[in-house]
Amino acid sequence: MNPARHLRVDLAYDGTDFAGWQRQAGPPTLQETVEGVLGRINGDRPVVVRAAGRTDAGTHARQQVIDFWLESPDSEAEILHAMQRMLPETVRPYRILRVADQFHPRHAAIRKEYRYVIDRSESGDPFRARYSWHYAGPLEEASMQRAITQLVGRHDWSGFTAAHCEVEDRVRTLERVELLAEAQVWTFRFVGEGFLTFMVRNLVGTLVEIGRGRFACSRIQEILESRDRSLAGPTAPARGLTLHQIEFDPTRA
Amino acid sequence: MNPARHLRVDLAYDGTDFAGWQRQAGPPTLQETVEGVLGRINGDRPVVVRAAGRTDAGTHARQQVIDFWLESPDSEAEILHAMQRMLPETVRPYRILRVADQFHPRHAAIRKEYRYVIDRSESGDPFRARYSWHYAGPLEEASMQRAITQLVGRHDWSGFTAAHCEVEDRVRTLERVELLAEAQVWTFRFVGEGFLTFMVRNLVGTLVEIGRGRFACSRIQEILESRDRSLAGPTAPARGLTLHQIEFDPTRA
Repeated sequence: MNPARHLRVDLAYDGTDFAGWQRQAGPPTLQETVEGVLGRINGDRPVVVRAAGRTDAGTHARQQVIDFWLESPDSEAEILHAMQRMLPETVRPYRILRVADQFHPRHAAIRKEYRYVIDRSESGDPFRARYSWHYAGPLEEASMQRAITQLVGRHDWSGFTAAHCEVEDRVRTLERVELLAEAQVWTFRFVGEGFLTFMVRNLVGTLVEIGRGRFACSRIQEILESRDRSLAGPTAPARGLTLHQIEFDPTRA
Repeated sequence: MNPARHLRVDLAYDGTDFAGWQRQAGPPTLQETVEGVLGRINGDRPVVVRAAGRTDAGTHARQQVIDFWLESPDSEAEILHAMQRMLPETVRPYRILRVADQFHPRHAAIRKEYRYVIDRSESGDPFRARYSWHYAGPLEEASMQRAITQLVGRHDWSGFTAAHCEVEDRVRTLERVELLAEAQVWTFRFVGEGFLTFMVRNLVGTLVEIGRGRFACSRIQEILESRDRSLAGPTAPARGLTLHQIEFDPTRA
Protein backbone atom coordinates (compact mmCIF):
# COMPACT_ATOMS: atom_id res chain seq x y z
CA MET A 1 0.00 0.00 0.00
CA ASN A 2 1.40 3.37 -1.04
CA PRO A 3 0.85 6.48 1.06
CA ALA A 4 -1.93 8.59 -0.43
CA ARG A 5 -0.83 11.68 -2.33
CA HIS A 6 -2.97 14.82 -2.48
CA LEU A 7 -3.22 15.89 -6.12
CA ARG A 8 -4.73 18.78 -8.04
CA VAL A 9 -5.75 18.35 -11.66
CA ASP A 10 -6.85 21.10 -14.05
CA LEU A 11 -9.17 20.01 -16.82
CA ALA A 12 -11.26 21.35 -19.71
CA TYR A 13 -14.49 19.80 -20.89
CA ASP A 14 -17.29 20.02 -23.39
CA GLY A 15 -20.26 19.48 -21.09
CA THR A 16 -22.84 18.85 -23.84
CA ASP A 17 -23.17 15.15 -23.16
CA PHE A 18 -23.08 15.35 -19.35
CA ALA A 19 -25.71 16.07 -16.73
CA GLY A 20 -23.47 18.71 -15.12
CA TRP A 21 -20.55 18.34 -12.78
CA GLN A 22 -22.06 16.98 -9.60
CA ARG A 23 -22.69 13.28 -9.02
CA GLN A 24 -26.40 12.40 -8.96
CA ALA A 25 -28.81 9.67 -10.00
CA GLY A 26 -29.59 9.53 -13.70
CA PRO A 27 -27.53 10.38 -16.76
CA PRO A 28 -23.73 10.49 -16.42
CA THR A 29 -22.15 13.47 -14.73
CA LEU A 30 -18.59 14.72 -15.04
CA GLN A 31 -17.84 13.94 -11.41
CA GLU A 32 -18.76 10.27 -11.67
CA THR A 33 -16.94 9.94 -15.00
CA VAL A 34 -13.72 11.38 -13.55
CA GLU A 35 -14.08 9.45 -10.28
CA GLY A 36 -14.62 6.22 -12.23
CA VAL A 37 -11.37 6.68 -14.15
CA LEU A 38 -9.42 7.67 -11.02
CA GLY A 39 -10.78 4.63 -9.18
CA ARG A 40 -9.34 2.37 -11.86
CA ILE A 41 -5.98 4.19 -11.74
CA ASN A 42 -6.12 3.77 -7.97
CA GLY A 43 -6.32 -0.03 -8.24
CA ASP A 44 -10.12 -0.10 -8.01
CA ARG A 45 -10.15 1.72 -4.70
CA PRO A 46 -12.80 4.46 -4.79
CA VAL A 47 -11.65 8.07 -5.19
CA VAL A 48 -13.68 11.13 -4.25
CA VAL A 49 -13.10 14.34 -6.17
CA ARG A 50 -13.86 17.91 -5.14
CA ALA A 51 -14.23 20.69 -7.70
CA ALA A 52 -13.59 24.43 -7.51
CA GLY A 53 -16.96 25.10 -9.12
CA ARG A 54 -20.02 23.11 -10.02
CA THR A 55 -21.13 23.48 -13.60
CA ASP A 56 -24.73 23.00 -14.75
CA ALA A 57 -25.89 20.30 -17.16
CA GLY A 58 -24.76 21.22 -20.67
CA THR A 59 -22.29 23.90 -19.59
CA HIS A 60 -18.56 23.73 -20.24
CA ALA A 61 -15.20 24.44 -18.65
CA ARG A 62 -11.93 25.69 -20.08
CA GLN A 63 -10.46 25.44 -16.59
CA GLN A 64 -12.03 23.36 -13.91
CA VAL A 65 -9.85 22.45 -10.91
CA ILE A 66 -10.31 19.31 -8.87
CA ASP A 67 -8.44 17.61 -6.05
CA PHE A 68 -8.30 14.07 -4.72
CA TRP A 69 -6.12 11.62 -2.80
CA LEU A 70 -4.54 8.76 -4.69
CA GLU A 71 -2.65 5.69 -3.47
CA SER A 72 -1.33 4.74 -6.93
CA PRO A 73 2.46 4.21 -7.15
CA ASP A 74 2.57 5.99 -10.55
CA SER A 75 4.32 9.30 -11.07
CA GLU A 76 2.22 12.42 -11.52
CA ALA A 77 2.97 12.48 -15.28
CA GLU A 78 1.86 8.85 -15.54
CA ILE A 79 -1.37 9.60 -13.68
CA LEU A 80 -2.14 12.51 -16.01
CA HIS A 81 -1.45 10.38 -19.07
CA ALA A 82 -3.62 7.57 -17.77
CA MET A 83 -6.46 10.02 -17.16
CA GLN A 84 -6.06 11.42 -20.69
CA ARG A 85 -6.11 7.92 -22.14
CA MET A 86 -9.14 6.70 -20.20
CA LEU A 87 -11.38 9.78 -20.26
CA PRO A 88 -13.50 10.62 -23.32
CA GLU A 89 -11.99 13.17 -25.67
CA THR A 90 -14.55 15.74 -24.51
CA VAL A 91 -12.92 15.71 -21.04
CA ARG A 92 -9.26 16.77 -21.16
CA PRO A 93 -7.11 16.98 -18.04
CA TYR A 94 -4.06 19.10 -18.87
CA ARG A 95 -2.15 19.77 -15.65
CA ILE A 96 -1.36 17.84 -12.48
CA LEU A 97 0.22 19.15 -9.30
CA ARG A 98 0.95 17.72 -5.89
CA VAL A 99 -0.70 19.98 -3.30
CA ALA A 100 -0.60 20.53 0.46
CA ASP A 101 -2.97 18.50 2.66
CA GLN A 102 -5.12 21.52 3.44
CA PHE A 103 -5.70 22.52 -0.19
CA HIS A 104 -9.40 22.71 -1.03
CA PRO A 105 -10.19 23.86 -4.58
CA ARG A 106 -13.38 25.66 -3.68
CA HIS A 107 -12.01 27.42 -0.61
CA ALA A 108 -8.72 28.37 -2.26
CA ALA A 109 -10.40 29.86 -5.34
CA ILE A 110 -10.49 33.64 -5.00
CA ARG A 111 -11.71 34.63 -8.45
CA LYS A 112 -13.55 32.97 -11.33
CA GLU A 113 -14.23 34.00 -14.86
CA TYR A 114 -17.29 32.75 -16.71
CA ARG A 115 -17.90 33.43 -20.39
CA TYR A 116 -21.17 33.32 -22.20
CA VAL A 117 -21.34 33.20 -26.01
CA ILE A 118 -24.25 34.23 -28.22
CA ASP A 119 -24.11 33.16 -31.86
CA ARG A 120 -25.45 36.20 -33.72
CA SER A 121 -25.25 34.70 -37.20
CA GLU A 122 -28.49 34.70 -39.15
CA SER A 123 -28.83 30.94 -39.64
CA GLY A 124 -26.66 29.60 -36.81
CA ASP A 125 -23.11 28.29 -37.00
CA PRO A 126 -23.18 24.46 -36.74
CA PHE A 127 -19.63 24.46 -35.35
CA ARG A 128 -20.68 26.71 -32.50
CA ALA A 129 -24.04 25.01 -31.87
CA ARG A 130 -22.78 23.13 -28.80
CA TYR A 131 -21.02 26.16 -27.32
CA SER A 132 -23.34 29.09 -27.82
CA TRP A 133 -26.91 30.35 -27.69
CA HIS A 134 -28.09 31.07 -31.21
CA TYR A 135 -29.97 34.36 -31.02
CA ALA A 136 -30.16 36.21 -34.32
CA GLY A 137 -32.87 38.78 -33.54
CA PRO A 138 -32.07 42.48 -33.18
CA LEU A 139 -30.30 43.54 -29.99
CA GLU A 140 -29.49 47.11 -29.00
CA GLU A 141 -25.88 46.78 -27.94
CA ALA A 142 -25.62 50.27 -26.42
CA SER A 143 -28.40 49.59 -23.86
CA MET A 144 -26.79 46.29 -22.92
CA GLN A 145 -23.41 47.96 -22.43
CA ARG A 146 -25.05 50.58 -20.21
CA ALA A 147 -26.86 47.89 -18.19
CA ILE A 148 -23.65 45.97 -17.68
CA THR A 149 -22.00 48.86 -15.83
CA GLN A 150 -24.73 48.61 -13.17
CA LEU A 151 -23.80 45.02 -12.41
CA VAL A 152 -20.26 45.66 -11.27
CA GLY A 153 -19.84 45.87 -7.51
CA ARG A 154 -20.93 44.20 -4.31
CA HIS A 155 -24.58 43.18 -4.45
CA ASP A 156 -27.11 40.75 -3.09
CA TRP A 157 -27.79 38.59 -6.15
CA SER A 158 -31.00 36.92 -4.93
CA GLY A 159 -32.95 38.35 -7.87
CA PHE A 160 -30.62 36.62 -10.31
CA THR A 161 -30.42 33.26 -8.53
CA ALA A 162 -32.19 29.99 -9.14
CA ALA A 163 -35.16 29.32 -6.89
CA HIS A 164 -33.48 26.10 -5.71
CA CYS A 165 -30.20 27.82 -4.75
CA GLU A 166 -29.55 26.77 -1.17
CA VAL A 167 -26.90 29.34 -0.32
CA GLU A 168 -28.14 31.78 2.30
CA ASP A 169 -25.62 34.58 1.95
CA ARG A 170 -26.12 35.79 -1.59
CA VAL A 171 -23.87 38.83 -1.43
CA ARG A 172 -20.95 38.63 -3.85
CA THR A 173 -18.66 41.09 -5.58
CA LEU A 174 -18.76 41.10 -9.35
CA GLU A 175 -15.45 42.68 -10.29
CA ARG A 176 -15.78 42.97 -14.02
CA VAL A 177 -18.37 42.43 -16.74
CA GLU A 178 -17.66 42.91 -20.42
CA LEU A 179 -19.54 42.38 -23.64
CA LEU A 180 -17.42 41.99 -26.75
CA ALA A 181 -19.91 42.36 -29.61
CA GLU A 182 -18.38 41.12 -32.84
CA ALA A 183 -20.29 40.69 -36.08
CA GLN A 184 -21.15 36.99 -35.66
CA VAL A 185 -20.31 36.26 -32.03
CA TRP A 186 -21.08 38.17 -28.87
CA THR A 187 -19.03 37.16 -25.82
CA PHE A 188 -19.81 38.14 -22.25
CA ARG A 189 -17.10 37.94 -19.57
CA PHE A 190 -18.04 37.83 -15.90
CA VAL A 191 -15.22 38.01 -13.35
CA GLY A 192 -15.93 37.77 -9.66
CA GLU A 193 -15.14 36.15 -6.35
CA GLY A 194 -18.08 33.79 -6.52
CA PHE A 195 -21.24 33.03 -8.43
CA LEU A 196 -24.58 31.55 -7.41
CA THR A 197 -26.63 28.88 -9.19
CA PHE A 198 -27.84 30.11 -12.60
CA MET A 199 -26.55 33.63 -11.81
CA VAL A 200 -24.60 34.12 -15.06
CA ARG A 201 -27.34 32.59 -17.19
CA ASN A 202 -29.98 34.77 -15.50
CA LEU A 203 -27.82 37.85 -15.99
CA VAL A 204 -27.42 37.05 -19.69
CA GLY A 205 -31.13 36.32 -20.08
CA THR A 206 -31.93 39.70 -18.48
CA LEU A 207 -29.36 41.59 -20.56
CA VAL A 208 -30.86 40.10 -23.72
CA GLU A 209 -34.32 41.32 -22.66
CA ILE A 210 -32.79 44.78 -22.27
CA GLY A 211 -31.18 44.44 -25.73
CA ARG A 212 -34.55 43.49 -27.19
CA GLY A 213 -36.10 46.61 -25.63
CA ARG A 214 -38.45 44.61 -23.45
CA PHE A 215 -36.76 45.82 -20.23
CA ALA A 216 -35.33 49.28 -19.57
CA CYS A 217 -31.70 49.55 -18.44
CA SER A 218 -32.93 50.52 -14.97
CA ARG A 219 -34.36 47.02 -14.61
CA ILE A 220 -30.98 45.80 -13.34
CA GLN A 221 -31.14 48.21 -10.40
CA GLU A 222 -34.73 47.19 -9.67
CA ILE A 223 -33.90 43.49 -9.59
CA LEU A 224 -30.86 44.03 -7.39
CA GLU A 225 -32.83 46.17 -4.95
CA SER A 226 -36.03 44.12 -4.87
CA ARG A 227 -34.17 40.76 -4.95
CA ASP A 228 -37.23 39.59 -6.88
CA ARG A 229 -36.39 36.80 -9.32
CA SER A 230 -39.67 37.28 -11.16
CA LEU A 231 -38.44 40.66 -12.45
CA ALA A 232 -35.40 39.11 -14.19
CA GLY A 233 -35.33 37.68 -17.69
CA PRO A 234 -35.46 33.98 -18.55
CA THR A 235 -32.44 31.81 -17.80
CA ALA A 236 -30.21 31.78 -20.90
CA PRO A 237 -29.52 28.30 -22.38
CA ALA A 238 -26.81 26.24 -20.67
CA ARG A 239 -24.80 25.54 -23.82
CA GLY A 240 -23.52 29.13 -24.09
CA LEU A 241 -21.84 29.07 -20.67
CA THR A 242 -18.20 28.19 -19.96
CA LEU A 243 -16.29 28.33 -16.70
CA HIS A 244 -13.26 29.97 -18.27
CA GLN A 245 -10.65 30.46 -15.57
CA ILE A 246 -10.09 30.14 -11.83
CA GLU A 247 -7.60 32.13 -9.82
CA PHE A 248 -6.29 30.79 -6.51
CA ASP A 249 -5.00 32.37 -3.35
CA PRO A 250 -1.26 31.77 -3.80
CA THR A 251 -0.87 31.07 -0.09
CA ARG A 252 -3.47 28.28 -0.28
CA ALA A 253 -2.85 26.71 -3.70
CA MET B 1 -50.10 21.42 -58.19
CA ASN B 2 -47.50 24.16 -58.37
CA PRO B 3 -44.87 24.26 -61.11
CA ALA B 4 -41.57 22.92 -59.79
CA ARG B 5 -38.93 25.54 -59.02
CA HIS B 6 -35.22 24.81 -59.34
CA LEU B 7 -33.51 25.93 -56.15
CA ARG B 8 -29.97 26.14 -54.86
CA VAL B 9 -29.29 26.04 -51.13
CA ASP B 10 -25.95 26.67 -49.41
CA LEU B 11 -25.47 24.94 -46.08
CA ALA B 12 -22.89 24.31 -43.37
CA TYR B 13 -22.74 21.20 -41.27
CA ASP B 14 -20.92 19.44 -38.47
CA GLY B 15 -20.58 15.96 -40.00
CA THR B 16 -19.61 14.17 -36.77
CA ASP B 17 -22.90 12.37 -36.37
CA PHE B 18 -23.43 11.50 -40.05
CA ALA B 19 -22.15 8.69 -42.27
CA GLY B 20 -21.02 11.23 -44.88
CA TRP B 21 -22.97 13.09 -47.52
CA GLN B 22 -24.15 10.40 -49.87
CA ARG B 23 -27.29 8.34 -49.33
CA GLN B 24 -26.54 4.69 -48.50
CA ALA B 25 -27.82 1.85 -46.39
CA GLY B 26 -26.93 2.04 -42.70
CA PRO B 27 -26.48 5.02 -40.38
CA PRO B 28 -28.02 8.38 -41.39
CA THR B 29 -26.30 10.42 -44.08
CA LEU B 30 -26.61 14.12 -44.73
CA GLN B 31 -28.26 13.56 -48.10
CA GLU B 32 -31.11 11.49 -46.70
CA THR B 33 -31.57 13.89 -43.77
CA VAL B 34 -31.88 16.89 -46.10
CA GLU B 35 -34.04 14.99 -48.60
CA GLY B 36 -36.35 13.86 -45.79
CA VAL B 37 -36.93 17.45 -44.66
CA LEU B 38 -37.42 18.71 -48.22
CA GLY B 39 -39.89 15.91 -48.91
CA ARG B 40 -42.02 17.10 -46.00
CA ILE B 41 -41.81 20.72 -47.20
CA ASN B 42 -42.82 19.43 -50.65
CA GLY B 43 -46.07 17.98 -49.34
CA ASP B 44 -44.60 14.48 -48.86
CA ARG B 45 -43.55 14.22 -52.48
CA PRO B 46 -39.99 12.89 -52.67
CA VAL B 47 -37.19 15.32 -53.46
CA VAL B 48 -33.78 14.36 -54.83
CA VAL B 49 -30.82 16.55 -53.98
CA ARG B 50 -27.48 16.89 -55.79
CA ALA B 51 -24.40 18.24 -54.03
CA ALA B 52 -21.34 20.10 -55.33
CA GLY B 53 -19.06 17.76 -53.40
CA ARG B 54 -19.43 14.55 -51.49
CA THR B 55 -18.01 14.65 -48.01
CA ASP B 56 -16.73 11.57 -46.15
CA ALA B 57 -18.23 10.21 -42.96
CA GLY B 58 -17.24 12.45 -40.06
CA THR B 59 -16.07 15.37 -42.23
CA HIS B 60 -17.64 18.78 -42.23
CA ALA B 61 -18.69 21.63 -44.51
CA ARG B 62 -18.67 25.38 -44.05
CA GLN B 63 -20.12 25.69 -47.52
CA GLN B 64 -21.82 22.82 -49.27
CA VAL B 65 -24.05 23.65 -52.23
CA ILE B 66 -27.05 21.56 -53.23
CA ASP B 67 -29.84 21.86 -55.78
CA PHE B 68 -33.32 20.35 -56.10
CA TRP B 69 -36.74 20.93 -57.64
CA LEU B 70 -39.60 21.79 -55.33
CA GLU B 71 -43.33 22.06 -55.99
CA SER B 72 -44.11 23.80 -52.70
CA PRO B 73 -46.11 27.06 -53.01
CA ASP B 74 -43.96 28.70 -50.29
CA SER B 75 -41.63 31.60 -50.98
CA GLU B 76 -37.90 30.97 -51.03
CA ALA B 77 -37.48 32.66 -47.64
CA GLU B 78 -40.21 30.43 -46.21
CA ILE B 79 -38.55 27.32 -47.61
CA LEU B 80 -35.22 28.31 -46.07
CA HIS B 81 -36.86 28.96 -42.71
CA ALA B 82 -38.70 25.65 -42.82
CA MET B 83 -35.44 23.84 -43.55
CA GLN B 84 -33.73 25.64 -40.66
CA ARG B 85 -36.57 24.74 -38.34
CA MET B 86 -36.75 21.07 -39.33
CA LEU B 87 -33.07 20.19 -39.72
CA PRO B 88 -30.91 19.41 -36.69
CA GLU B 89 -28.82 22.32 -35.40
CA THR B 90 -25.68 20.65 -36.74
CA VAL B 91 -27.00 21.17 -40.30
CA ARG B 92 -27.54 24.83 -41.11
CA PRO B 93 -28.80 26.00 -44.50
CA TYR B 94 -28.02 29.71 -44.80
CA ARG B 95 -28.81 30.81 -48.37
CA ILE B 96 -31.42 29.98 -50.97
CA LEU B 97 -31.46 31.03 -54.62
CA ARG B 98 -33.64 30.26 -57.58
CA VAL B 99 -31.41 28.91 -60.36
CA ALA B 100 -31.64 28.20 -64.07
CA ASP B 101 -32.84 24.78 -65.19
CA GLN B 102 -29.40 23.73 -66.39
CA PHE B 103 -27.61 24.55 -63.10
CA HIS B 104 -25.77 21.52 -61.72
CA PRO B 105 -23.79 22.17 -58.53
CA ARG B 106 -21.02 19.72 -59.33
CA HIS B 107 -20.55 20.78 -62.93
CA ALA B 108 -20.77 24.50 -62.21
CA ALA B 109 -18.19 24.35 -59.39
CA ILE B 110 -14.83 25.54 -60.70
CA ARG B 111 -12.84 25.74 -57.49
CA LYS B 112 -13.06 24.25 -54.01
CA GLU B 113 -11.21 24.94 -50.80
CA TYR B 114 -10.74 22.26 -48.18
CA ARG B 115 -9.24 22.94 -44.78
CA TYR B 116 -7.67 20.45 -42.46
CA VAL B 117 -7.03 21.27 -38.79
CA ILE B 118 -4.52 19.63 -36.47
CA ASP B 119 -4.88 20.32 -32.75
CA ARG B 120 -1.28 20.73 -31.59
CA SER B 121 -2.07 21.30 -27.90
CA GLU B 122 -0.43 18.93 -25.49
CA SER B 123 -3.54 17.40 -23.95
CA GLY B 124 -6.13 18.11 -26.65
CA ASP B 125 -8.73 20.86 -26.74
CA PRO B 126 -12.16 19.34 -25.95
CA PHE B 127 -13.88 22.15 -27.90
CA ARG B 128 -11.94 21.27 -31.03
CA ALA B 129 -12.18 17.48 -30.59
CA ARG B 130 -14.92 17.08 -33.20
CA TYR B 131 -13.22 19.38 -35.73
CA SER B 132 -9.54 18.48 -35.63
CA TRP B 133 -6.98 15.71 -35.46
CA HIS B 134 -5.23 15.85 -32.12
CA TYR B 135 -1.55 15.30 -32.86
CA ALA B 136 0.77 16.68 -30.19
CA GLY B 137 4.04 14.97 -31.15
CA PRO B 138 6.98 16.91 -32.61
CA LEU B 139 6.60 18.05 -36.23
CA GLU B 140 9.29 19.79 -38.26
CA GLU B 141 7.32 22.62 -39.81
CA ALA B 142 10.05 23.70 -42.24
CA SER B 143 10.14 20.30 -44.00
CA MET B 144 6.38 20.29 -44.29
CA GLN B 145 6.37 23.79 -45.78
CA ARG B 146 9.01 22.67 -48.31
CA ALA B 147 7.02 19.55 -49.20
CA ILE B 148 3.88 21.61 -49.71
CA THR B 149 5.45 23.62 -52.52
CA GLN B 150 5.87 20.38 -54.50
CA LEU B 151 2.14 19.72 -54.43
CA VAL B 152 1.05 22.82 -56.31
CA GLY B 153 0.41 22.26 -59.99
CA ARG B 154 -1.21 19.83 -62.40
CA HIS B 155 -0.58 16.23 -61.34
CA ASP B 156 -1.95 12.72 -61.55
CA TRP B 157 -3.06 12.18 -57.94
CA SER B 158 -3.45 8.37 -58.09
CA GLY B 159 -0.82 7.92 -55.36
CA PHE B 160 -2.91 10.03 -52.97
CA THR B 161 -6.31 8.52 -53.81
CA ALA B 162 -8.40 5.93 -52.03
CA ALA B 163 -8.18 2.42 -53.48
CA HIS B 164 -11.96 2.43 -54.01
CA CYS B 165 -11.94 5.73 -55.97
CA GLU B 166 -13.79 5.00 -59.19
CA VAL B 167 -12.72 8.06 -61.14
CA GLU B 168 -10.49 7.14 -64.06
CA ASP B 169 -8.97 10.50 -64.92
CA ARG B 170 -7.05 11.43 -61.82
CA VAL B 171 -5.30 14.50 -63.17
CA ARG B 172 -6.25 17.68 -61.33
CA THR B 173 -4.69 21.07 -60.75
CA LEU B 174 -3.97 21.99 -57.15
CA GLU B 175 -3.77 25.77 -57.24
CA ARG B 176 -2.72 26.57 -53.74
CA VAL B 177 -1.64 24.80 -50.57
CA GLU B 178 -0.85 26.57 -47.32
CA LEU B 179 0.02 25.55 -43.81
CA LEU B 180 -0.67 28.15 -41.13
CA ALA B 181 1.20 26.81 -38.09
CA GLU B 182 0.02 28.59 -34.95
CA ALA B 183 0.99 27.59 -31.43
CA GLN B 184 -2.01 25.37 -30.69
CA VAL B 185 -3.65 24.90 -34.09
CA TRP B 186 -2.20 24.05 -37.47
CA THR B 187 -4.47 24.71 -40.43
CA PHE B 188 -3.90 23.42 -43.95
CA ARG B 189 -5.69 25.07 -46.89
CA PHE B 190 -6.04 23.21 -50.19
CA VAL B 191 -7.50 25.11 -53.13
CA GLY B 192 -8.06 23.40 -56.47
CA GLU B 193 -10.43 22.67 -59.29
CA GLY B 194 -11.29 19.23 -57.99
CA PHE B 195 -10.33 16.62 -55.44
CA LEU B 196 -10.46 12.83 -55.42
CA THR B 197 -11.67 10.50 -52.67
CA PHE B 198 -9.47 10.77 -49.55
CA MET B 199 -7.01 12.99 -51.46
CA VAL B 200 -6.79 15.77 -48.88
CA ARG B 201 -6.65 13.33 -45.96
CA ASN B 202 -3.91 11.32 -47.68
CA LEU B 203 -1.95 14.50 -48.41
CA VAL B 204 -2.19 15.55 -44.76
CA GLY B 205 -1.22 12.05 -43.57
CA THR B 206 1.83 12.15 -45.84
CA LEU B 207 2.82 15.68 -44.81
CA VAL B 208 2.66 14.64 -41.16
CA GLU B 209 4.99 11.71 -41.88
CA ILE B 210 7.39 14.21 -43.45
CA GLY B 211 7.04 16.44 -40.38
CA ARG B 212 7.84 13.49 -38.15
CA GLY B 213 10.98 12.82 -40.17
CA ARG B 214 9.79 9.40 -41.31
CA PHE B 215 9.60 10.49 -44.97
CA ALA B 216 11.98 12.84 -46.79
CA CYS B 217 10.52 15.88 -48.56
CA SER B 218 11.28 14.20 -51.88
CA ARG B 219 8.67 11.58 -51.04
CA ILE B 220 5.97 13.83 -52.51
CA GLN B 221 7.66 13.75 -55.91
CA GLU B 222 8.11 9.98 -55.69
CA ILE B 223 4.44 9.37 -54.93
CA LEU B 224 3.28 11.70 -57.70
CA GLU B 225 5.58 10.05 -60.24
CA SER B 226 5.06 6.42 -59.21
CA ARG B 227 1.30 6.90 -58.56
CA ASP B 228 1.85 4.26 -55.87
CA ARG B 229 -0.56 4.66 -52.95
CA SER B 230 1.56 2.38 -50.77
CA LEU B 231 4.29 5.04 -50.67
CA ALA B 232 1.98 7.67 -49.14
CA GLY B 233 1.29 8.15 -45.45
CA PRO B 234 -1.82 6.94 -43.62
CA THR B 235 -5.14 8.66 -44.27
CA ALA B 236 -5.54 11.46 -41.72
CA PRO B 237 -8.66 11.22 -39.51
CA ALA B 238 -11.93 12.45 -41.05
CA ARG B 239 -12.82 14.82 -38.23
CA GLY B 240 -10.09 17.34 -39.16
CA LEU B 241 -11.44 17.91 -42.67
CA THR B 242 -13.85 20.66 -43.73
CA LEU B 243 -15.10 21.55 -47.20
CA HIS B 244 -14.61 25.27 -46.67
CA GLN B 245 -15.73 27.05 -49.81
CA ILE B 246 -16.92 26.45 -53.36
CA GLU B 247 -16.53 28.88 -56.23
CA PHE B 248 -18.86 28.67 -59.24
CA ASP B 249 -18.54 29.56 -62.86
CA PRO B 250 -20.54 32.83 -62.91
CA THR B 251 -22.00 31.94 -66.30
CA ARG B 252 -23.38 28.67 -64.93
CA ALA B 253 -24.41 29.54 -61.35
